[in-house]
Amino acid sequence: MAAITLAELAVRYGCELRGDPDLVVSSVATLDAAEPGAICFLANSAYRSLLGSAKATAVILTEEDADECPVACLVTPNPYAAYAAVAAELYPARKLNPGVHPSVVCDPETLVPASAEVGPGAVLGANVQLGERIYIGANTVIGDDVTIGDDGWLAANVSLYSGTRLGKRCRLHSGSVIGSDGFGIAQSESGWVKVPQVGGVEIGDDFEMGANTTIDRGAIDDTHIGNDVKLDNLVQVAHNASIGDHTAIAAMSGIAGSATIGARCQIGGNSAVLGHFEVCDDVSIHAQSLVTRAIRKPGAYSSAFGVEEVGKWRRLVGRVKRLEVVAGQIKELQKKVKGLIK
Amino acid sequence: MAAITLAELAVRYGCELRGDPDLVVSSVATLDAAEPGAICFLANSAYRSLLGSAKATAVILTEEDADECPVACLVTPNPYAAYAAVAAELYPARKLNPGVHPSVVCDPETLVPASAEVGPGAVLGANVQLGERIYIGANTVIGDDVTIGDDGWLAANVSLYSGTRLGKRCRLHSGSVIGSDGFGIAQSESGWVKVPQVGGVEIGDDFEMGANTTIDRGAIDDTHIGNDVKLDNLVQVAHNASIGDHTAIAAMSGIAGSATIGARCQIGGNSAVLGHFEVCDDVSIHAQSLVTRAIRKPGAYSSAFGVEEVGKWRRLVGRVKRLEVVAGQIKELQKKVKGLIK
Amino acid sequence: MAAITLAELAVRYGCELRGDPDLVVSSVATLDAAEPGAICFLANSAYRSLLGSAKATAVILTEEDADECPVACLVTPNPYAAYAAVAAELYPARKLNPGVHPSVVCDPETLVPASAEVGPGAVLGANVQLGERIYIGANTVIGDDVTIGDDGWLAANVSLYSGTRLGKRCRLHSGSVIGSDGFGIAQSESGWVKVPQVGGVEIGDDFEMGANTTIDRGAIDDTHIGNDVKLDNLVQVAHNASIGDHTAIAAMSGIAGSATIGARCQIGGNSAVLGHFEVCDDVSIHAQSLVTRAIRKPGAYSSAFGVEEVGKWRRLVGRVKRLEVVAGQIKELQKKVKGLIK
Repeated sequence: MAAITLAELAVRYGCELRGDPDLVVSSVATLDAAEPGAICFLANSAYRSLLGSAKATAVILTEEDADECPVACLVTPNPYAAYAAVAAELYPARKLNPGVHPSVVCDPETLVPASAEVGPGAVLGANVQLGERIYIGANTVIGDDVTIGDDGWLAANVSLYSGTRLGKRCRLHSGSVIGSDGFGIAQSESGWVKVPQVGGVEIGDDFEMGANTTIDRGAIDDTHIGNDVKLDNLVQVAHNASIGDHTAIAAMSGIAGSATIGARCQIGGNSAVLGHFEVCDDVSIHAQSLVTRAIRKPGAYSSAFGVEEVGKWRRLVGRVKRLEVVAGQIKELQKKVKGLIK
Repeated sequence: MAAITLAELAVRYGCELRGDPDLVVSSVATLDAAEPGAICFLANSAYRSLLGSAKATAVILTEEDADECPVACLVTPNPYAAYAAVAAELYPARKLNPGVHPSVVCDPETLVPASAEVGPGAVLGANVQLGERIYIGANTVIGDDVTIGDDGWLAANVSLYSGTRLGKRCRLHSGSVIGSDGFGIAQSESGWVKVPQVGGVEIGDDFEMGANTTIDRGAIDDTHIGNDVKLDNLVQVAHNASIGDHTAIAAMSGIAGSATIGARCQIGGNSAVLGHFEVCDDVSIHAQSLVTRAIRKPGAYSSAFGVEEVGKWRRLVGRVKRLEVVAGQIKELQKKVKGLIK
Repeated sequence: MAAITLAELAVRYGCELRGDPDLVVSSVATLDAAEPGAICFLANSAYRSLLGSAKATAVILTEEDADECPVACLVTPNPYAAYAAVAAELYPARKLNPGVHPSVVCDPETLVPASAEVGPGAVLGANVQLGERIYIGANTVIGDDVTIGDDGWLAANVSLYSGTRLGKRCRLHSGSVIGSDGFGIAQSESGWVKVPQVGGVEIGDDFEMGANTTIDRGAIDDTHIGNDVKLDNLVQVAHNASIGDHTAIAAMSGIAGSATIGARCQIGGNSAVLGHFEVCDDVSIHAQSLVTRAIRKPGAYSSAFGVEEVGKWRRLVGRVKRLEVVAGQIKELQKKVKGLIK
């Protein structure tokens, strides 16, 4: 763990410092658990009441919250992003220990740069193109003709099928799979006929992919992921989907085949976008929602109900299912009232 | 990549050829991106407008669309299935390179046929029964007493627990797991008691299983999957579920314990069938739907809402939750109108 | 497989025996498939009609069902828990075969106790603390500074990131991942900034985790799982979630970041709890439901609809979407009726 003065942090991250510039912080903490030596952040004014009892050495916060801060603070319009940078400095990523573990199986047609670290049991196919400073975790398997850009980081037990192309600074978590066959099956009289999936997967820079997330290869053309795309755990991206730059998708969401998601979208957990539909830029989809049509207007969308006590929920479902009766009752009332008015 | 004349394709796949029989195709492409040398398909007349500018050497399509095709075409009632066969011919599967990699750990009680290819780091338990021409990917782990039929294909990082039995021509993608313990737990005063899961998993021929999909072993009897069943990525099949022949299940759907799904069913993504219910043959379940009862009649079923803009959706949910008030208002109106009519 | 007399079972599990105490059982079976030699259970009186034709040697059941049992029976208030114990006795877990396979890669700073069994291809990082009688499956990868308590059992292809701490008797199924980075990203003008995830994962005793389930490490503090927690397959637990003792979560459910689930909760499949909300003890959430607020009262909650035939469902959705019109119609009727009454 590193240690750094508030003065340095203020300069580096363009914050206004209120307090002693020589104070040193060496750890991060949450506001309510922080001890001296720690730096915290307050990004949501709803938690402002926690400031009063803060014991941290410093808090990163907005102008709006600064006056109530009883300790030193770094003032910035975007405390969460500033915190992220400070935390990265205090907790630097584990340094690479370049070298290929003797248990690695690497096809002779693949050249591993001297700057790479390849962990025990990893398997690299033929003609894998590796950039500089790449980390490949233990027991990760990389197929033939895969490209991984500079500073790629692959955790343990990742699987990349042949033909996967990753840009720079991509991070893949354990259990993630890229390039598996899309779900392409054609009905015939004798049953399903497999449709060969001959496309690949093309991924931009600064991609992060959560644990056990899956991305299928394209059926004919490639599946396409832009730059700075972030996928949480257990997400599914089907064949020939396209995801625009800076889009983030929370856990357990699925993008069906040939769906196109624009740039800067945010998709909540356990949601799904049906196949072939297009979602434009700057769309936010709430959790457990289903996109069943094209979305052409930026904004937030939902189709989810929140829980109620079971008895209440069942009555409500019952009432929904009797809406046809309600319509009939209204029609009859309208008729009778019309008769009365005449 | 292979190359083949239209004449040969027409004969082999029973299509009517319109155009020069000596034209040669060597790749597949989408209609709008195709260049000469490629063959395309048009399976959905909604995309017929793309035909006009087609530059492909040939298009596979129906009688209905043939007249508008500006290039050679192969006419068939089922263009998608014909395309699948043609694509398989043009892009033959990578040939097996028989042999067992020296890093493989194989129990002495297991015999690997000479026709098998077993990749680096794979682990085979005792008494594994392997058919002919089986591919086992790198770092895949196969427990004791597993059976894999002829022409089985297991990608990298697959896990088969002991007692799993696969028919012929089964394809399992990376991260898939078969035979893990079912979620069997009994409540007691001191907490949960694990219920031993002593059944196995029995799977028919021509099964395909997507990346990170899971199938649990049976609690007492086996979990059962029929012939020609297709599971997409991140699907869950719980203990003692039974899935009929030719059924296909899209990504992120779950079949709960002891549920029985009939033959030729199609289950959309992110759906679930609750435990112990029976779904008859030829049922289609829409995406993000929940089966909470037996389905005894073939047809299509849904319980999903599609997204609306958040403001509109919230008003709608509010109205649903006030349906009790609506019922009261109608009752009062009925009473008053009755009074007026008297 | 073991064999045991009914007398012994009755004594060991505190059941009342009705029938010949010297009868021997050696297997478990379902009521309708049982043959002599097998023991069954009947935990749900709905299946009582199956008793009449039972061929099992004995059935475990409640007082209420005992009179209709044509064969020997073990009477207990909790037949399912008694069955679990009997099955565990008849099907004892495979005994450990202590030793470290020569292909294992273990950091010199980690000491593997002589009582452990470590399978082929497993990888252990530095400073891993292992209790007694631990099983580590083939190709499982354990990061630095991981702690695993006595009698831990890890299947093949599990991934534990550094800093994961497991209590005693924890069982992790294949493909499960613990300690991957939480989905912490901060928006900035130039795109997403990764928020370092510096917390760990702390898990209690008697934890079971299904295949391909994921638990993220904490952003600052730890993600916390209590004692006797059971997670099914493909479950997601996000950073800094907290799950109380004896809580069970069915497949494909997600607990979002910083959500707190109480003790003895049961969460149905394909459900989700949104971030930062608190669910109190003894709450049951139905399948495919969404918790969008704090739950402070024990009980059962739901927000799911069950499927209808598509035509009927579409009309129903249409009626829901016209609820604003219904409200207008009622308002107009109320006005007219008021006019008539005056």
